[in-house]
Amino acid sequence: MLHYDLEKKKERPLYEALYEFLKEDILRGRFQPGTRLPSKRELARDNGISVKTVLGAYEQLLVEGYITSQEKRGYFVANVETMEEYHPTPASYPQLYQEEQWFADFTSNNTVYDKFPFSLWRKVMREVLTEKDMELVRRAHFLGVSSLREAIADYLYRLRGMNVSPECIIIGASIEYLYGKLIRLLPSGTVYGMENPGYRKIPRIYEENGLSWRSVDMDENGICMESLRASGAGVIHVSPEHHYPLGTVMSAARRQELLAWAAETPYRYIIEDDYDCEFRYRSRSIPALQSMDRSHRVIYMNTFSKTLAPAIRISYMVLPEELMHRYIDNANFYSNSASSCEQYALAKFIEKGYFERHLSRMKKYYHTEGERLRRILKQSSLLPAVSVSGGESGTHLLVKVDTSMTDQEIKDAARQAGINLACLSEFCSQVRPEYEHTLVLNYSDMEEKNLREAVRRLGNLFIQW
Amino acid sequence: MLHYDLEKKKERPLYEALYEFLKEDILRGRFQPGTRLPSKRELARDNGISVKTVLGAYEQLLVEGYITSQEKRGYFVANVETMEEYHPTPASYPQLYQEEQWFADFTSNNTVYDKFPFSLWRKVMREVLTEKDMELVRRAHFLGVSSLREAIADYLYRLRGMNVSPECIIIGASIEYLYGKLIRLLPSGTVYGMENPGYRKIPRIYEENGLSWRSVDMDENGICMESLRASGAGVIHVSPEHHYPLGTVMSAARRQELLAWAAETPYRYIIEDDYDCEFRYRSRSIPALQSMDRSHRVIYMNTFSKTLAPAIRISYMVLPEELMHRYIDNANFYSNSASSCEQYALAKFIEKGYFERHLSRMKKYYHTEGERLRRILKQSSLLPAVSVSGGESGTHLLVKVDTSMTDQEIKDAARQAGINLACLSEFCSQVRPEYEHTLVLNYSDMEEKNLREAVRRLGNLFIQW
Repeated sequence: MLHYDLEKKKERPLYEALYEFLKEDILRGRFQPGTRLPSKRELARDNGISVKTVLGAYEQLLVEGYITSQEKRGYFVANVETMEEYHPTPASYPQLYQEEQWFADFTSNNTVYDKFPFSLWRKVMREVLTEKDMELVRRAHFLGVSSLREAIADYLYRLRGMNVSPECIIIGASIEYLYGKLIRLLPSGTVYGMENPGYRKIPRIYEENGLSWRSVDMDENGICMESLRASGAGVIHVSPEHHYPLGTVMSAARRQELLAWAAETPYRYIIEDDYDCEFRYRSRSIPALQSMDRSHRVIYMNTFSKTLAPAIRISYMVLPEELMHRYIDNANFYSNSASSCEQYALAKFIEKGYFERHLSRMKKYYHTEGERLRRILKQSSLLPAVSVSGGESGTHLLVKVDTSMTDQEIKDAARQAGINLACLSEFCSQVRPEYEHTLVLNYSDMEEKNLREAVRRLGNLFIQW
Repeated sequence: MLHYDLEKKKERPLYEALYEFLKEDILRGRFQPGTRLPSKRELARDNGISVKTVLGAYEQLLVEGYITSQEKRGYFVANVETMEEYHPTPASYPQLYQEEQWFADFTSNNTVYDKFPFSLWRKVMREVLTEKDMELVRRAHFLGVSSLREAIADYLYRLRGMNVSPECIIIGASIEYLYGKLIRLLPSGTVYGMENPGYRKIPRIYEENGLSWRSVDMDENGICMESLRASGAGVIHVSPEHHYPLGTVMSAARRQELLAWAAETPYRYIIEDDYDCEFRYRSRSIPALQSMDRSHRVIYMNTFSKTLAPAIRISYMVLPEELMHRYIDNANFYSNSASSCEQYALAKFIEKGYFERHLSRMKKYYHTEGERLRRILKQSSLLPAVSVSGGESGTHLLVKVDTSMTDQEIKDAARQAGINLACLSEFCSQVRPEYEHTLVLNYSDMEEKNLREAVRRLGNLFIQW
């Protein structure tokens, strides 16, 4: 007689409880492989349950392969290895990763949150939730929601002087994701060139994808053509409108040289990283390099994660038609990676002019913040600042300091004082002396009092040294 | 005297119009490099505008590098190459890609849209929009929103017998994206093994990432161990709960063998693709392979794009602790790729029990749909069906047909009849005879009348041949 105390597992349906007991007994070796199990009727009687319940348990064991059934003969234990008892412990929380807390974080590029247009964003999101239904569930166009691509094409035409079809725009959850797609459209032996100094994520993307890349120097007019030619790179990543972190604007002549370089041989491309283009204060924004390109060699990339909010995962790239054809042949296989609901909401947000309104508000705000930080730095008697540059565009200042400390020592000492900052040398794949001893201070969203305190602590580092 | 008809560009601010005229003249070679431009005062007088307007135009040209300025001497045309005139045409719409229209599409795995719990989803989305503010904009935790990871951990514990910490769950916009991350955590020489037949996206991911992979045969108990050993693969992708498209459930003994194989040497891993696990009809769902793994060699993956809606871009993977540590060291650099708002909404959707309610509704629905399709197939006098299998779980049936047509001929003829379908051979990296002449019919959301018509057209193909 085989009896189980089914009450012990009373939180489960009876057939599940029985299945669990039988499975445990099989795994613990109580029943050897080949053993015949009691008939359904027998087991039902012995446990005071229905035959149907036993059948449920036996069927589950059958599906999982713990038992086999032979017609007219009954159920037999399958050839399963026995295992020592295993009791999973309730889920533990090792907290593998802790975000650090700072008194002041000058490395963050996050949008200043309380300036986010919450009510307008909520409004468009709610409208989308009300107006759309099938669009909220159906697989979106693999290039992205078409109303968003149209809104972006229109925006690029009006604000960046670009003339692109919505059919050449690809929406993705991040620049990193889109870069991954782009790489696969270019010949596999391609050598990538990256500005030195430059945005640190790009070489990481190259390395993670196993690509060869070279560092290319900058001069006061933008990417240095001699260095580019010497590097052997076939594809060059640049930010002509506003270099990060140097702030350089690529000159008209250099733009022409660069475009001519790309047109020289097949498969040369320029990746125009237009991140930050929206925040130019003293002058009109500068037309995109893409708008001057008549040889179809510029790949344009931008993101809303910077201008709108990091939590809104929508970036895009504009491909020259030839690459676009290749993309369509390759990638229509995958679903679009960005949320459809947010894509519809963003399309509305742009169409209704909310996005440009938000940008002009943020421009004013960042401009004021830059001026404020510059003023506070100037007033600091402790900081051995030789020069403060930047502030014409973007969201950071460069502060050159006169010190015998190394950049690492500066950063470590700042950390001790609760301040997170970056030095220009960190953005270099090859450090040159002129890039040393330069702090990169992103405007952070701090009260004046705290900002003064942060700058005072910064100054102190150099005094204490 | 330099005079421009500024009225011609009257839609623009005056300084912009002047800047445009000057830039065009420079690019067309009207002014040679080195030419001194009129003074601000002169140009203002000649055009009847303010000096400030001229200054605005000159400053923009300066920033963009079209002119240079020399103190006390004035403004000079920079060394810019002249260009032939270029008039961008208004954005064209080449419509590079057209989605196909079908009378019946048996290849689609899309959720049946009118079964989507619109009102509940809208409710949680609206709640999130009301309750959250900073969370809607701030960069989310790089692993994903923690309330969602907790909800998933709890769900996996209750429904899949898995005991995992939310700290070992990584949220991503798609399985493809997460796979890309995973690959970078494994040794670079790793050979990947893929079920033959199997889910077609996986080998594509391997190929796009330049990885070596081998095809591993299936038998009636799941992945074939001899074939796995012979392949030399170090990482094997399996779907033990329900193989797609064969429908095989991996037996308990085979699960043990597979786990033992992984534990034999370092860096062997099993990728458990649990896609579809939610839709098992006749029995309780089968505990995940991960729940039996004591050697920390199972990587678990699943997605909500299938169970909820393809437009909701949320997938996840559970990593063994060692890989998780490596991921944290590598990837906390990137932002999480899924929308924060939808992550919060999904967390609520699961916590409130809506997700499980939706699943049980869908289970019932799919089960009925499967029965209906099976019945209609059985009644079809034209279709030379030898056997119909599947329907215990998942959302498709396999129909073996007796025909002299090749699989490609079947597909082409079906296309002509407005029917999109797949054959089992398409899921094979190596076609074996037993996998030929087998249609894979996903349940599609059709009215009975249309479904009958689709099956009638299918039957006709074989008659006409």
